[in-house]
Amino acid sequence: MTRVTDAEKDTSADNVDNVGGRTIPPRPYVLGDIPGPLDRAELTSMDAWWRAANYLAVGQIYLMRNPLLREPLRPEHIKPRLLGHFGTVPGLNLVWVHANRVIRQRGLNAVFVAGPGHGGPGPNACAWLEGTYSELYGHISRDAVGMGALFAQFSFPGGVPSHCAPETPGSFHEGGELGYSLLHAFGAALDNPDLTVFCVIGDGEAETGPLAGSWHAAKFISPGRDGAVVPILALNQYKIANPTLLARIPESELLTLMRGYGYDPIIVAGDDPARVHQDMASAMDSCLDQIERIKAAARANPDERAYWPMIVLRTPKGWTCPPVVDGERVEGTFRAHQVPLPAARTDDAHRVVLEEWLRSYRPEELFDENGRPVGELLDLVPVGARRMSANPVANGGTLVRDLRLPDWRDYGVEIDAPGAADHEATRVLGSWLRDVTRDNPDNFLTFAPDELASNRLQDILEVTGRDWQAEIDPNDVKLDRRGRVIEVLSEHMCQGLLEGYLLTGRHGVFTCYEAFIHIVDAMFNQHAKWLDASAAVPWRRPVPSLNYLLSSHVWRQDHNGFTHQDPGFLDVVLNKKPEIVRVYLPPDANTLLSTYDHCLRSRHYVNVVVAGKQPQPDWLGVQDAAAHCARGVGIWEWAGNNDDLGASPDVVLACAGDVPTLETLAAAAILRDRLPDLRVRVVNVVDLMRLLPADEHPHGLPDSEFDTLFTTNRPVIFAFHGYPWLIHRLTYRRTNHSEMHVRGYKEKGTTTTPFDMVMLNDLDRYHLVMDVVDRVPGLREKAAGLRQEMVDARWKARAWTREHGADIPVVSQWRWPDPAL
Amino acid sequence: MTRVTDAEKDTSADNVDNVGGRTIPPRPYVLGDIPGPLDRAELTSMDAWWRAANYLAVGQIYLMRNPLLREPLRPEHIKPRLLGHFGTVPGLNLVWVHANRVIRQRGLNAVFVAGPGHGGPGPNACAWLEGTYSELYGHISRDAVGMGALFAQFSFPGGVPSHCAPETPGSFHEGGELGYSLLHAFGAALDNPDLTVFCVIGDGEAETGPLAGSWHAAKFISPGRDGAVVPILALNQYKIANPTLLARIPESELLTLMRGYGYDPIIVAGDDPARVHQDMASAMDSCLDQIERIKAAARANPDERAYWPMIVLRTPKGWTCPPVVDGERVEGTFRAHQVPLPAARTDDAHRVVLEEWLRSYRPEELFDENGRPVGELLDLVPVGARRMSANPVANGGTLVRDLRLPDWRDYGVEIDAPGAADHEATRVLGSWLRDVTRDNPDNFLTFAPDELASNRLQDILEVTGRDWQAEIDPNDVKLDRRGRVIEVLSEHMCQGLLEGYLLTGRHGVFTCYEAFIHIVDAMFNQHAKWLDASAAVPWRRPVPSLNYLLSSHVWRQDHNGFTHQDPGFLDVVLNKKPEIVRVYLPPDANTLLSTYDHCLRSRHYVNVVVAGKQPQPDWLGVQDAAAHCARGVGIWEWAGNNDDLGASPDVVLACAGDVPTLETLAAAAILRDRLPDLRVRVVNVVDLMRLLPADEHPHGLPDSEFDTLFTTNRPVIFAFHGYPWLIHRLTYRRTNHSEMHVRGYKEKGTTTTPFDMVMLNDLDRYHLVMDVVDRVPGLREKAAGLRQEMVDARWKARAWTREHGADIPVVSQWRWPDPAL
Repeated sequence: MTRVTDAEKDTSADNVDNVGGRTIPPRPYVLGDIPGPLDRAELTSMDAWWRAANYLAVGQIYLMRNPLLREPLRPEHIKPRLLGHFGTVPGLNLVWVHANRVIRQRGLNAVFVAGPGHGGPGPNACAWLEGTYSELYGHISRDAVGMGALFAQFSFPGGVPSHCAPETPGSFHEGGELGYSLLHAFGAALDNPDLTVFCVIGDGEAETGPLAGSWHAAKFISPGRDGAVVPILALNQYKIANPTLLARIPESELLTLMRGYGYDPIIVAGDDPARVHQDMASAMDSCLDQIERIKAAARANPDERAYWPMIVLRTPKGWTCPPVVDGERVEGTFRAHQVPLPAARTDDAHRVVLEEWLRSYRPEELFDENGRPVGELLDLVPVGARRMSANPVANGGTLVRDLRLPDWRDYGVEIDAPGAADHEATRVLGSWLRDVTRDNPDNFLTFAPDELASNRLQDILEVTGRDWQAEIDPNDVKLDRRGRVIEVLSEHMCQGLLEGYLLTGRHGVFTCYEAFIHIVDAMFNQHAKWLDASAAVPWRRPVPSLNYLLSSHVWRQDHNGFTHQDPGFLDVVLNKKPEIVRVYLPPDANTLLSTYDHCLRSRHYVNVVVAGKQPQPDWLGVQDAAAHCARGVGIWEWAGNNDDLGASPDVVLACAGDVPTLETLAAAAILRDRLPDLRVRVVNVVDLMRLLPADEHPHGLPDSEFDTLFTTNRPVIFAFHGYPWLIHRLTYRRTNHSEMHVRGYKEKGTTTTPFDMVMLNDLDRYHLVMDVVDRVPGLREKAAGLRQEMVDARWKARAWTREHGADIPVVSQWRWPDPAL
Repeated sequence: MTRVTDAEKDTSADNVDNVGGRTIPPRPYVLGDIPGPLDRAELTSMDAWWRAANYLAVGQIYLMRNPLLREPLRPEHIKPRLLGHFGTVPGLNLVWVHANRVIRQRGLNAVFVAGPGHGGPGPNACAWLEGTYSELYGHISRDAVGMGALFAQFSFPGGVPSHCAPETPGSFHEGGELGYSLLHAFGAALDNPDLTVFCVIGDGEAETGPLAGSWHAAKFISPGRDGAVVPILALNQYKIANPTLLARIPESELLTLMRGYGYDPIIVAGDDPARVHQDMASAMDSCLDQIERIKAAARANPDERAYWPMIVLRTPKGWTCPPVVDGERVEGTFRAHQVPLPAARTDDAHRVVLEEWLRSYRPEELFDENGRPVGELLDLVPVGARRMSANPVANGGTLVRDLRLPDWRDYGVEIDAPGAADHEATRVLGSWLRDVTRDNPDNFLTFAPDELASNRLQDILEVTGRDWQAEIDPNDVKLDRRGRVIEVLSEHMCQGLLEGYLLTGRHGVFTCYEAFIHIVDAMFNQHAKWLDASAAVPWRRPVPSLNYLLSSHVWRQDHNGFTHQDPGFLDVVLNKKPEIVRVYLPPDANTLLSTYDHCLRSRHYVNVVVAGKQPQPDWLGVQDAAAHCARGVGIWEWAGNNDDLGASPDVVLACAGDVPTLETLAAAAILRDRLPDLRVRVVNVVDLMRLLPADEHPHGLPDSEFDTLFTTNRPVIFAFHGYPWLIHRLTYRRTNHSEMHVRGYKEKGTTTTPFDMVMLNDLDRYHLVMDVVDRVPGLREKAAGLRQEMVDARWKARAWTREHGADIPVVSQWRWPDPAL
């Protein structure tokens, strides 16, 4: 039975004019006898759940008192500021109750991802109906008192946000910035063979680039190894103020698009609840049958690609809300996107209609005299952890298994003397990650945007292949139906899949070119905020850290151009809560190993590790690397000539990053050779957070220790991997800040060689020596000759480069002088 | 005729083993007689062009001397470091020569977008063949000498990068980070009714989210108003080390996907040059015929949606390169992605094969004795500006028309007294942008991710609609086949389309929620680098600035949650070259108008303007706003009580941003009332770059002026819109930096009201007063009572908020006190 008359549904402008300035409440509906898989009792009770969840959603948006309408609705019952988006809620609640049906019938292990923005009232309502809300938040009991608290806290100061968030039971997906719901769903499904993820995607969200690309993520789902995702495209046709693209193409074109993405779509459409319930039940049965067939087929023939089912759910925006408000069509239009009756507190007519709207759900049939859901509703709730609101998969920290990590020391490189040999640091790390991959065959994955081998982690491919479910050509190499490396040329997909994998309690690494990690700045922000907020939710458990390995970094862009130079992700990261973020700049292979071992053991952080893939000198042996990384910052006595810590040096050469460390040591060697009386101290920083004050970051050095390392008044020439001001930002509260002279990357756009690159940025050894001469009091006069030599050496190096297209051999073949010399 | 034998093409592992460790040069081919639109002469000469361009591309990658192989190839002729990607080049050159054919035949006005990464050698080669390279770079003459210079400069220190860049004639698309080629192409087509854009999209790039979403951009192309884009998906099957997804789905599925995106695809596939030439010519003819039909149909019926043609070009990766290198299949595999003969300088066998490879293009037929292209090639070059390498559309600065801007003062709000009335600043701006839109009907567009009305710019819709080519439903409002607002829920699409529009010489605004602009951080980076690098290219002319209007900002997230709080885009922006970036924080409606008038007149910048959409007090009248914005920073004498600039104040209250300004003025009012003897100076900052030293930014204040405003030794309490350390970063070189005490946003995740939000961040009026009491020497004792009052006021405000869900009236109804009081 349709709920509005045909005349009302014919919403031409004329027709809206005809209703004048009226505000029309929704009419209660009677469920018609529509044939389908649901018998009358099931249909009735599922519809009752849907009505209950919709009632509870409207209550959250509007009411701060009088939750069960036991008294007539008065202005003071209504919140002063009305927030939350109703438009998407009925669709979310519909999917939830239908998911519960198949969970119960088939014993599914399932979780729910709510993609549409600000749809929080829906999952909140369902979690409360399932009892989970009350189990996790004692004061929000499953009765009238708790219902009042549920309503009052929603989008209210000190309460919960309007979208799904860490506070939402059963959610592992933040409903803030849009675009990542499918990626989180697929990430959760990886290595979870018995899991089903019901993922609702808003048709607004579907316009975003990341979502448009992520439909292809199904091509990385191995039916034998992974769970299944049921994408449900919620085609309610409108965004805030516009129709959606996918709702304004012919249905046949939409189906073609979904088939082109590799899915087998089913459409459920309508505005008659009985019809939609029957069709949705039928669609859900079809999807799960098809998934079972896919799984069975994969057992028989792992090479046959799966065409996964998905549902297009075309129902009215704000379904069941007032059809007309102030003479304008609302239900089924963009005006239902947010709050359909915006003046409910101040406008009597709106308030009256709000009450009729709430009563149209017939709450008296849904909640008993104590406000508890009636038995008919409780019968629909799956048992215990089968409730989507209580599934531990969505609180992944509870499921984490520690990684089995081989001793990184066994993979370290041997050091005869500092700088005597070169290694590709990431290649060395790759040998360890290979065995991490081997030893953790079901809870560790590596993600890369076609850059695994480019970033020199190809040793991992000795024990596994790249995950690939599409066709395989004889010329392809290292593709594997169960590969444990996921490579796709989309940083968004790498990040989103890894987030979904981590949030459901597994471990992973994302390796990326440094410059292009900015592509996921916004995703990083949202994930860091999730970690931050979830740490304050008592029932959430820490999840494994999000580990970045950024290579092909700013200093080695000889292969590429200006667009590949950007070390600014560090600045983005450091804007987030200090408790959550860590940045490491290991200077060589062994320190990279030690750092990464630490990262893979950590929880609930974002670890950013920047390391080069080109051959660079090894400075520290395994034991020294372990000790240095444990401290995070330290004096390299062997590199300076100021062995007595008690004696203040004349100058501190500080460095953070592999290339800056190399240049600093080369500068130190020149200074030791040419100015042997100058007391030089070399300080290397691995853990950038050590520079922050102790009260700003858990890793921050106390001022006394900082002053001991960096002195209180001697010039510090700081060679830094990133934009120079980051060091100032980290150290501006330190005693010696006015003597911090930082050399780092500044935007210069030209094609060049490695050494020319550092010369362009005044980060080269010669310029660092010039800096020392300029900054150490009295030295400019004493060392004028050396300074001029440095100027000349730079010009000579530059000229060589321009002629030969390579670095001058005195630089490219330079080695740290044997300590015996 | 196929170029390799079938046995060689059957590249199973066994087969590769069979070729042993050999390196096999490509064999010259003879063009077969394949029927098609090209007659024998045309086929032969187009193939000659293709061979010439391929020869020139290989030369760029490998040769630093001996460009025409007039002597046997020796190691010293070969570059020491081999860069650039050959794999995609033959496809690019093929499209170019076939585009030239239709340009000549149909008199097209066309430009070329090269999406695939590091494919620079292709467009460089074509521009040289067309003579443009030599016209723009005198030393790269169209002869043997110039050819040598063309080769030597490529990916060489001081030369040009390996991808398309500002230095590339005819390019307006940076080939660095991938994902934006289609968006730039569609952006160029908007408002260019007679333009055709040939856009080659790599199948690697096609995996990115932004590219996957941007296929839908065709749904904003109005056939009557806009030009046409011919997307050419270069399906060469491989990325760096992996096959591509779109190459490993059945061809029928790929076609289904393209049809689902709304295109009418044509496949051109093969490895026999004659066959591919004929098929490509036929496909090009079909596409352009279809475009003509679409344009004609649109004249007859503007409501009929166009299904645009596109081409899938499936040819071998590295087509025409050595088929086998060191016993491994290269041509047609991922190994051809970069440099097929990596050891050409050091390995004699590779060098020999390199020479054979180059000679396989038969350069002696292509270039005369002076190294000039033979007449047969020159005949294929379109005339003058019809050459894609010389089309002024790709050097948009040459085509810019100034906007007709109505006098913003006529749109300003009247001010009786500071703070006496409230306005929504962006709404006021919208009334001016409405008339800007009206007065510039073909070169100004506004882009928004479904946020135009939310950000209060809806007045624009009084003179135009939202661009919409898909179906229109009776419930839709303000959709228009020629709408001058483009709304799509994809920040990537908004940014990319606007970039394409600006780079081809038009003007526009992108309005976005502040937090979500991080989605395009990487795109901003690349665009800023383009602006920076192009400013150094003598023949490039400045293009209109990229103007952001960020609203729904961090301080007014009562509607949303933690994920909507992020003012960090400013930090990203300030990492770029100072010459390029500007950041404005106008405190009210009139200053926003004045700022935006300035932005729309500017060229070649990125202007970031942050302004609230909620009602906020008006502080400055039109004349005062103009004067204040011209200075960018200034003392608001009326707000402080230190009228005599000569007299040093006891404290400076500085502010930047609308909410911080409000709180600062409220704090100043309290201080004036309660501590009338305290000399308070209020400094407002509109132009953030004024804080930088004069030698770091063109807008930077000289130290003397900075010291005059901020004193050299008095405490400065700085209320800032963004993360507080940004102010430290901007001012750490200033005399008084140690007395800068900044209050800004720090990550706190909770749902709250506006005033509660500033209280949580200690940016509220009460805390600012406490800061003053704490920082001004001697005041803590003298004003202990006031300080305690402030503490109490904060607790009271917080408690009110938690109870009522609204801000305490003493704050929400506060007004700047009448100066007479």
